[in-house]
Amino acid sequence: MPADPAPTELLMIPGPTNVPASALAALGRPPIYHRGEEFARLLASCTEGLQRVFQTRNDVLILTASGTGAVEAAIVNSLSPGDRVVAVRSGKFGERLAEIAAIFGAEVTSVDVEAGKAVEPEQVRAALLRSGAKALLFIQNETSTGVCQDVAAIAAVAREQGALVVVDAVSGMGGIPVQTDGWGLDLVASGSQKAFMLPPGLGFVSVSEAGWEAAKRARMPRLYFDLPAARASLAKGQTPFTPNVNMLMALEAVLEVMFAEGMEAVYARHASLARACRAGMEALGLSLFADPRHASDIVTAVAAPPEIDIKALTKAVRSRHRIVITGGQGELQGKILRVAHVGMCTMEDLLRTIRAIAEELAALGHPCSAEAAALAAMGAG
Amino acid sequence: MPADPAPTELLMIPGPTNVPASALAALGRPPIYHRGEEFARLLASCTEGLQRVFQTRNDVLILTASGTGAVEAAIVNSLSPGDRVVAVRSGKFGERLAEIAAIFGAEVTSVDVEAGKAVEPEQVRAALLRSGAKALLFIQNETSTGVCQDVAAIAAVAREQGALVVVDAVSGMGGIPVQTDGWGLDLVASGSQKAFMLPPGLGFVSVSEAGWEAAKRARMPRLYFDLPAARASLAKGQTPFTPNVNMLMALEAVLEVMFAEGMEAVYARHASLARACRAGMEALGLSLFADPRHASDIVTAVAAPPEIDIKALTKAVRSRHRIVITGGQGELQGKILRVAHVGMCTMEDLLRTIRAIAEELAALGHPCSAEAAALAAMGAG
Repeated sequence: MPADPAPTELLMIPGPTNVPASALAALGRPPIYHRGEEFARLLASCTEGLQRVFQTRNDVLILTASGTGAVEAAIVNSLSPGDRVVAVRSGKFGERLAEIAAIFGAEVTSVDVEAGKAVEPEQVRAALLRSGAKALLFIQNETSTGVCQDVAAIAAVAREQGALVVVDAVSGMGGIPVQTDGWGLDLVASGSQKAFMLPPGLGFVSVSEAGWEAAKRARMPRLYFDLPAARASLAKGQTPFTPNVNMLMALEAVLEVMFAEGMEAVYARHASLARACRAGMEALGLSLFADPRHASDIVTAVAAPPEIDIKALTKAVRSRHRIVITGGQGELQGKILRVAHVGMCTMEDLLRTIRAIAEELAALGHPCSAEAAALAAMGAG
Repeated sequence: MPADPAPTELLMIPGPTNVPASALAALGRPPIYHRGEEFARLLASCTEGLQRVFQTRNDVLILTASGTGAVEAAIVNSLSPGDRVVAVRSGKFGERLAEIAAIFGAEVTSVDVEAGKAVEPEQVRAALLRSGAKALLFIQNETSTGVCQDVAAIAAVAREQGALVVVDAVSGMGGIPVQTDGWGLDLVASGSQKAFMLPPGLGFVSVSEAGWEAAKRARMPRLYFDLPAARASLAKGQTPFTPNVNMLMALEAVLEVMFAEGMEAVYARHASLARACRAGMEALGLSLFADPRHASDIVTAVAAPPEIDIKALTKAVRSRHRIVITGGQGELQGKILRVAHVGMCTMEDLLRTIRAIAEELAALGHPCSAEAAALAAMGAG
C-alpha cells in the first residue's frame, strides 16, 4: 500500500528539480499512441525546442534514458574500440566520461583536474598533442564540484587539433548558455531533470555533420542507444523504440515555460541566483569551493567548517524546513555542501534555503546571522 | 505552443496502453529526491511488487529505459564477445534479440520460426546441441505475430543443455503468468508500458544466482545498463543513475491496482478477453493469424481479406471511433491487423473495438455483422 503522497519539498539539488505545474499536468495526462500524426507533431515540436536551447541546427535526438544514457550514447556513437581519446576528469562526472570510453574499449588519456578547478585549455592541448587523440570528452558544468568550464575555449583547442568535440552538458544546458554551433561542438548530451525542470527519464544528444561522419565509422556496440537509428526514425516522426510519451508531452510544456520567460532571462536569472548564493554562503562563514573564475551558475559548492557534520546539516534542513540540499560525492563526501539553483528556482526559494542553512548551522554550533546572509544574497543577486 | 490536449483515445495496441487514474495522479505529483529514506521505501516497495509479478525471489532491477533497454541489459550482462548463443527468431522482437547479441559480439545461431507459429522445444534442443551455446535467448510473447511461446518447455530444454535462460517478457509479463523461479529463468526482461499499465520509460530485469555468476564473467561493455551496479545501489535503496522517480511513484500505484484485482484474476481476465477477441474477429470473417495452440492472451493478430487496406481500416477506426488498433510490422505490414487487450482493458472496451472494426470493414466493402461478432465475443469470453 503506497504511503500518503509526501508533502511537497523544495528541491535545491542538481536534479531532480522542481517541476512547473503545466508539466506535471502534462505528465498526468493519458499517453498518446507513439505512431501517427499526433506523436509526430509532438516529437517535432520538442526537437525544435531543444535545437533552440542547444543553439544548433544539428539534429537533436531524444532518448528514453537519464542523462548518463545520453552521455553513453554520445560516446558509443562516435568512437571505435582502440580509438585514442582525451577525457577531462574534472570531478565525478568527468570521471564517468573516462569510464564509459574505457569500458567500451577506447584508449583513454586522462587530464586530471584538481577538485574545484576548471581545466586549462593548455592542459587539453598538451594531452591532445601527446596522445594524438581523435576525440575530446569533457563536462560543461561539473555538478560534483560546482565548476563550469570554459566550453568555447576548450572546444577551440580540440578543433585546432582536429579532435571531435564531445560535451556532457547534462546539468548545465538550459541554465547556462551553450553555443553548440557557434563553438563547434560535435556531440552534446543533456537530460531532462536539471535546467529542463522535468523528472529524470529523457536524454538529449545533438550531433553535428562531423559527428554523423564519425558515427558511420564508429564500431562501439549499441542498439538501444544507436543514434543513426534514432535519426532515421525522427525523419518519420517516430523513435526506434517506444518512447516515454508522457515525458515528451511534459517536455513540450516546459519548453513553452522556458521560451515564455525568454532564454536570455533564464540565463540571467541563473547567474543572479548563483551570485546571490555565493554571497549568502560566504556571509554564513562558509568558503566557496569552486575557483571563483569558474563558479557554476546552477550549483554552488561550499566547504563547511571542520566542526560541522554535513550529513547532519542536510538532514536537519530537510526534516525541519522541507528543503533538500546535498553534500559531496565520492571523495568530497563530508567535505562540501552543495546548493543547486537550477530550473524552476526563484530568489525567494534561495533566501528560504539560506535562512534554513543558517538556522541549522547555528544549531550545530556554528553561529551565524541568517538576516546578514539574506541581505548579502539579495545585494549580490 | 502545444496544441490542446487530445481527447482521450482508447488504446487497443500492445503499448502504450491505457493508464489507471491513480497512476496518472502519481505521475503528475512533484518528484521526490532520489536519495534518502522516502525514495528507498518507494524503490523497495516497487521491487517487492515486481518480484511478486515475476514470481521470483531473484533480484529485480528497475532501469530508466524502455523494454528494449531492459532486454539489452539482460544480454550484455550475461555474455561476452565470442560467446555462442541460440536466439529464437519468432518475429520482429525475436529478431531484435538476435540483433543485440550479434551487435555486442556474440556468435548467434538462429532458430527461425515461421510467422504466427511458436518454436518447438525440439528445434531449440537441436540448435543448442549443434552449437554448444552457453545461452538461449527467446521471447515469451511475440507481439509482432500474436504468439505466446511455451516458456516452461523451452526453458526446460535449455536447462537440460546447461544453457543460461534469457527471456524477453516485455509484452507478456503481468498479463500472462511467468514462473520465473518455477521454470528456472535466469534473466527475464520486461517493461512498464504493456500489462503494467504505465507509459513507456521503465525496464525491469530479474537475475537468478546463475545469472549473477554469468554477470561476473560477462565482458560485453555496459555502464548505463550495468546490472551489478544496479544491484549494489539497490542494497542502499538507490539506483546508480538518477531514476525516473515519477514513473516509480506511478509503478507503485499500478502494482496496487494489480494486486487489488489479484494476479489470478488479472490473468483470467486477459485469457477471457483473448478468447472473446478471437471469436469476435472470426465472426467478422477475419482469420486468426497465430497458431491457435499458441495464441497470445494479450494481443490478437488476424489476417485481413485481400480487398481490405489495413492502413485505411486502422485509420478509420482511429479517426471515427477514437480507438487505436494497429497493423503488422516489417514483412507483415499490410498483411495483418492486431488488436491488443492488455493491461487496463475490459470486455466493454473490446466490444466497442469489435463493433468499430465491423463498421469500418463494412464501409470498406467487407460486409459483416457487428452484433453477431459482439455476441460471439461475449459467448466465448
